[in-house]
Amino acid sequence: MKFFAVIVAGGSGTRMNALLPKQFLLLNGKPVMMHTITAFFSCPQKPEIIVVLNEQHFSIWKQLCEEYQFDIKHKLVAGGKTRFYSVKNALDLINETAVIAIHDAVRPLISPQIIAEAYRQALDVGNAVVAVPSKDSVRWQNVNGVSQNLNRNEVFLVQTPQTFQSDILKRAYKQEYLEEFTDDASVVERSGVKINLLAGDQENFKITFPADLQMAEMILNEKSR
Amino acid sequence: MKFFAVIVAGGSGTRMNALLPKQFLLLNGKPVMMHTITAFFSCPQKPEIIVVLNEQHFSIWKQLCEEYQFDIKHKLVAGGKTRFYSVKNALDLINETAVIAIHDAVRPLISPQIIAEAYRQALDVGNAVVAVPSKDSVRWQNVNGVSQNLNRNEVFLVQTPQTFQSDILKRAYKQEYLEEFTDDASVVERSGVKINLLAGDQENFKITFPADLQMAEMILNEKSR
Repeated sequence: MKFFAVIVAGGSGTRMNALLPKQFLLLNGKPVMMHTITAFFSCPQKPEIIVVLNEQHFSIWKQLCEEYQFDIKHKLVAGGKTRFYSVKNALDLINETAVIAIHDAVRPLISPQIIAEAYRQALDVGNAVVAVPSKDSVRWQNVNGVSQNLNRNEVFLVQTPQTFQSDILKRAYKQEYLEEFTDDASVVERSGVKINLLAGDQENFKITFPADLQMAEMILNEKSR
Repeated sequence: MKFFAVIVAGGSGTRMNALLPKQFLLLNGKPVMMHTITAFFSCPQKPEIIVVLNEQHFSIWKQLCEEYQFDIKHKLVAGGKTRFYSVKNALDLINETAVIAIHDAVRPLISPQIIAEAYRQALDVGNAVVAVPSKDSVRWQNVNGVSQNLNRNEVFLVQTPQTFQSDILKRAYKQEYLEEFTDDASVVERSGVKINLLAGDQENFKITFPADLQMAEMILNEKSR
């Protein structure tokens, strides 16, 4: 079986244009996204890697690859208007039966073990979506402002990779875009497929704030000790 | 109106006995719980402060207070078997009509502004439970392993303080303990009261891992700049 990794680093939206995008910031002296790509490269399925990037950032990325002598082979694809269209652009490059993992570029601490397990589970049962239990109590609040407690054992915070057999994923991404599509799992679920969760770990968080970057450095340093 | 703050630092459970409990660890050179108590002391409602602590830790705490010349007045109450019984023990000390905020000792970055707003809202509408939106997609998975996407705009991660008018809170805590009681809001909700959420901020996280402590230090340092 063929395996792919689609690393989503950002679309053409304006939100990313302000400063240097998070995926290029240095984490232990190396751009965040290089850590992410390396994790996928290190897993036994040896996936083919496709990076989805705002077209305006292609040249920065190529410069960084040269500067850091980063030579893991990957394809670059231009991002779309939203994440949905970015993923769609990457899927257009995949024309064979495969298992496809979609992953946020700004989750550099994903472990190769979890990636490998996600590929195995998706190959076996169609899909695997990495998620962790919530550490906090969770409430559901409807439009009328009334909130209710959810059973904490039944609520999961979704991360990536979200991994699918290619036919399932490509069929799902043929749907019209809906606002409820907050991740790949919601797109695939809408196409009528049951989603299987796979236990992730809390370390696989998204780099959103500067403090997250320092948190990630601490975790990496603890691991290397 | 009288205001109380119940700072819950831990029960008599074994989980806390392993090492120095998190509430005593140093954050910018001062035990975590002193930051927490100071936040409540700094808010305009000037609440009376009750700290619930594992009885075995009373002497450490008293020593720390002396060592750090910590002189904010507070009562100490022994923790119970679980958080539910710990809060119950504190409520037994309150015999007047009041507004009571219950807060985790290990959330030292709570802002006095949010505490003040919680007291005001609880005074006004009966209760106020601080919560933040989830940054991640959220799935609900039932016992059969089937998961489904929840509308991210309708799902909130609950923090503390959870603030209630005393009669509502005391009546709720007269119920028999149930396993579904993961926080005060779930106890009060079970007694038939609608819960009102109040927007918190992401900085008000729980100190759980060593990295959280360093994250908290970074946030404090940024603030003081």
